[in-house]
Amino acid sequence: MDFKERLCTPVMMENPHADRVKDIAKLATRSVRTKKKQFLVEGPQAVREALKAHLENPVLDAVYITEAAFERHDDIAELMEEVHGTPTPEAGRKVFMRMVTDEVLDAMAGAVTPQGVLAVSFMLDKTPADIWGADAINPHLVAVLARVQDPGNAGTIIRTADAAGADLVVLSKGTVDVYNPKVVRSTAGSIFHVPMISGVELEEFAEDAKAQGIGVLAADGYGKVNLNDLEDAAAAKRLDVELENKPKYDLSRKTMWLFGNEAQGLSPEEKRLANTRVAVPVHGSAESLNVSIAAAVCLYASARAIHEA
Amino acid sequence: MDFKERLCTPVMMENPHADRVKDIAKLATRSVRTKKKQFLVEGPQAVREALKAHLENPVLDAVYITEAAFERHDDIAELMEEVHGTPTPEAGRKVFMRMVTDEVLDAMAGAVTPQGVLAVSFMLDKTPADIWGADAINPHLVAVLARVQDPGNAGTIIRTADAAGADLVVLSKGTVDVYNPKVVRSTAGSIFHVPMISGVELEEFAEDAKAQGIGVLAADGYGKVNLNDLEDAAAAKRLDVELENKPKYDLSRKTMWLFGNEAQGLSPEEKRLANTRVAVPVHGSAESLNVSIAAAVCLYASARAIHEA
Repeated sequence: MDFKERLCTPVMMENPHADRVKDIAKLATRSVRTKKKQFLVEGPQAVREALKAHLENPVLDAVYITEAAFERHDDIAELMEEVHGTPTPEAGRKVFMRMVTDEVLDAMAGAVTPQGVLAVSFMLDKTPADIWGADAINPHLVAVLARVQDPGNAGTIIRTADAAGADLVVLSKGTVDVYNPKVVRSTAGSIFHVPMISGVELEEFAEDAKAQGIGVLAADGYGKVNLNDLEDAAAAKRLDVELENKPKYDLSRKTMWLFGNEAQGLSPEEKRLANTRVAVPVHGSAESLNVSIAAAVCLYASARAIHEA
Repeated sequence: MDFKERLCTPVMMENPHADRVKDIAKLATRSVRTKKKQFLVEGPQAVREALKAHLENPVLDAVYITEAAFERHDDIAELMEEVHGTPTPEAGRKVFMRMVTDEVLDAMAGAVTPQGVLAVSFMLDKTPADIWGADAINPHLVAVLARVQDPGNAGTIIRTADAAGADLVVLSKGTVDVYNPKVVRSTAGSIFHVPMISGVELEEFAEDAKAQGIGVLAADGYGKVNLNDLEDAAAAKRLDVELENKPKYDLSRKTMWLFGNEAQGLSPEEKRLANTRVAVPVHGSAESLNVSIAAAVCLYASARAIHEA
């Protein structure tokens, strides 16, 4: 019996009203996610990254795929075969895999189109013990979402943090739920790459970070320090040039960036946690930058200075 | 009679089924927009920028506001009073302004919540004659959307281009309609700041640009030139340092960036239009960047080099 047949054994799932299907659809709701400590992973890109992540360290509970998607995505079919029979993070259970009809998959996913494949993953949150100390992450570049509300922005910042080589994303209390399906989709799989911690009280967290020698920068349109000047100083350092007016903050330091709410920016309390408030320059007549754009410019500036210091 | 009373003269608009309301709601449809050469501007931020733009150069056809929004946004009320009585771009007509009920405004806007204020603007497209030649824009920094499909990405790139001081945004044939209400909203008013031209055949346009001394760069994850190296060379130039290995492209040149489709990136034909293909480095395990994020990093790198050359 080949792997495809095994995925249909005893039968392909065909009933969109089955209890299992309804239970999965309920993961669109935060309270159900919180109770089960699970979330939905929709679409080939995200499921592919989930399967890869699971092979490193178990995260998956189940994977569902349509026959068309199974035939279309050879790499996903291969990864599924590798994952088949491996344990979930819960003791004594193996990852459940089944071939399903389009109707079943649509019923699981609710509003969106999962393009033929959907997984259920356990939550990925790190604990403070994973972050500081021996054998811990001890991050060099951290992105903090401080009450970011838009799922697309939150997901895009996580994806960008991953691309910039950040080794931790922190979601403050009051930030959109990172396991919201829209957030997960916007991360384009990066939710499985970059370590995360959510529901964080920033004041305490910033203190811990500073105690570990991490500088805290607030991305703030009204900040007195211009990101350009920090970048030029970092470039001068790389080029071995002595600058007359060095800015106070060295971008090649271990750094934690704070990014604020879309409408209000960072609160006065949040800004006070930072060593320095840094403005991304706005050249045109735009009033401000989208928070995910500001985050990209800041994180890439730090990444450059840190990775090539 | 004060201005607020005049906005209710002869009466406040109260009938969400009125023909005028239905006609405005139809602007959500591309064919209707194309026929009327008009589009919807929703919400305080966008309407504010539309009113300011109109005072420089007539663009508006009409403005509708609820009493609550009129009382809440003093600056918009003042701008409306300034615009009241001024001509539309169409000969012999003045900007129509009226106070409306919440129901009327919701009926005009369809799916979204316009937060109490909505305007109808004429389209803003420039013609090729506005771009090259005497008394024309002769841009220094151009962002090209090459078949970008997602309205949020397109709008965010326009907003970012504005903030980076780009003086032209080009939308290729096959790019999402810039007057789609979701695109307009994502520009956060920048659609009224940065000159735009849409429905453009890129091959011809790129040739015209090159003839004007503009360098063409393709943002391409597989590009052989690393954006970091171009940025370092620009920094070295500012710092008066001689580099041993200068990259071939000088970022302080007049530059046109090509940004491609979300799923496919730039096509081979589009890439061939560029002098150089430039990759934004991806440090982590992310496979790629969201196109609006890549555009932000590229445009800010150019802006820095051009504005401070």
